Amino acid sequence: MSSPAVLLHFDDELASAQRIAAQAGLTLGPMARHRFPDGELKLRLPAALPEHVVVLRTLDHPNEKLVELLLLARTARELGARHLTLVSPYLAYMRQDIAFTPGEAVSQRIVGQFLAGLFDAVITVDPHLHRVATLQEAVPVPQAVVLSGAPLLANLVAQQRPNALLVGPDEESAQWIAQAAARHGFDHAVCRKVRHGDRSVTIELPAGNFSGRAVVLLDDVASSGHTLVQAARLLLAAGATSVDVAVTHALFAGDALQLLSEAGIGQVWSTDCIAHASNAVSMAPAIAAALAGLTP
Amino acid sequence: MSSPAVLLHFDDELASAQRIAAQAGLTLGPMARHRFPDGELKLRLPAALPEHVVVLRTLDHPNEKLVELLLLARTARELGARHLTLVSPYLAYMRQDIAFTPGEAVSQRIVGQFLAGLFDAVITVDPHLHRVATLQEAVPVPQAVVLSGAPLLANLVAQQRPNALLVGPDEESAQWIAQAAARHGFDHAVCRKVRHGDRSVTIELPAGNFSGRAVVLLDDVASSGHTLVQAARLLLAAGATSVDVAVTHALFAGDALQLLSEAGIGQVWSTDCIAHASNAVSMAPAIAAALAGLTP
Repeated sequence: MSSPAVLLHFDDELASAQRIAAQAGLTLGPMARHRFPDGELKLRLPAALPEHVVVLRTLDHPNEKLVELLLLARTARELGARHLTLVSPYLAYMRQDIAFTPGEAVSQRIVGQFLAGLFDAVITVDPHLHRVATLQEAVPVPQAVVLSGAPLLANLVAQQRPNALLVGPDEESAQWIAQAAARHGFDHAVCRKVRHGDRSVTIELPAGNFSGRAVVLLDDVASSGHTLVQAARLLLAAGATSVDVAVTHALFAGDALQLLSEAGIGQVWSTDCIAHASNAVSMAPAIAAALAGLTP
Repeated sequence: MSSPAVLLHFDDELASAQRIAAQAGLTLGPMARHRFPDGELKLRLPAALPEHVVVLRTLDHPNEKLVELLLLARTARELGARHLTLVSPYLAYMRQDIAFTPGEAVSQRIVGQFLAGLFDAVITVDPHLHRVATLQEAVPVPQAVVLSGAPLLANLVAQQRPNALLVGPDEESAQWIAQAAARHGFDHAVCRKVRHGDRSVTIELPAGNFSGRAVVLLDDVASSGHTLVQAARLLLAAGATSVDVAVTHALFAGDALQLLSEAGIGQVWSTDCIAHASNAVSMAPAIAAALAGLTP
């Protein structure tokens, strides 16, 4: 992308914005946000914007942030932006890609089209796509770039647990786990997950010998933590000497971290896609490279 | 509007939906909503919809509800709806109609255009419009209907306080107060408001004799309650025998009702635009009449 460009961000993502701006040679464009007592938002952008504007907004707890994106994208166009890129390291609403029962809102497609109506390009990390093959099917923007946290997490595991057995919590992660494992020649396996509801998940270990192994559970996203807890208990019962966790997206709702600790999980490592105490690797260099590769 | 039509609603507006459906001869169409631990919503509509669909959603604490409207309006179209009417007794984001400082998002216009992209008609009550003359300028749908709670509130005041002095908290309400007062020949006046911030407002009473009067403060919306508290204190200090409050929209954020009581305010009456313990009159008949007047 031709410079100069500005990276718009809110205060709560300042650290992430600084890392990306430094890597990508962008100017920081802080935005002000005020919440009125009745819940309405007031946003203020820099008063003048260049043609190329990048917006940083990771979309955990997404609903209010989607309204922010509507307000700020429309305002950015009025202030001079002609090419708007959304950097959303965690992209929300990617799981519901069909109506599981008649009448359900297919939120992936609806939110994807909403974002495509606001932005010219979207960059994200490990979106939770199942039945669609590409991000562009879900978010039909001209340029949709998918990055992965798996290589960086695999590098970290190679340093911290050189002989790790990488275990994925469900079959959906099989290909992702295999690629991460291949990078350093890790043994790997995936569990079988049967989901009965948001907080009710049954895990079955795959066949294999876990005795004496240092296991690292690797997943794209951890929310309630219940899946990781179940997997960890089974692995420790099967003789694993340690169970650590590496995830791209550290959502960790409520008391999730406490549950992980109580289940005997040692370390929790994550990328900085969602700011969290467990952040151990930064996606900023990869995001900067993706920004450089966009054609405005 | 030609029947049959359905009124889509969520559980938290069931009572309001029942009143409107009964008056308008609509079938209730309950929608299911589930919030995942990570904040994402799952919505389910009735699996088949008629051509004409009415959506009830009052927009206090609006951000999550705007995302709901996006999801449900797009889904309703896929399920067969061809003409979508939004009944939003309280319409959010109507106050910021210009950029007060450079770079501010003009949320009235942006949210208005967002709603106009989802719905064919909008019905609301006493929207807080200042610098635009009509609702259709703010929400550019083919049919935009504005109702007022003032006549019903004035009727109620005539029953409860036959010799009331109606007082508006600021000059913006002058015309609205005058119309409500004319209905029953009430004396009326408006205060002068100087706003220093969300929770910092200075009120000056108009010239006049308040001694021995039963005053009713009449306004379109009450949020923090601080304006009403200041006005009530000045009026009681000026000799008013009682100060009651009648508002269309009972937002009453946080401890607002407690503050009103401590300031010596007696009764608080409101319309049912926002469900609240103070609701004393229902807009359902007026909304039903407006629905009957729409041309699909």
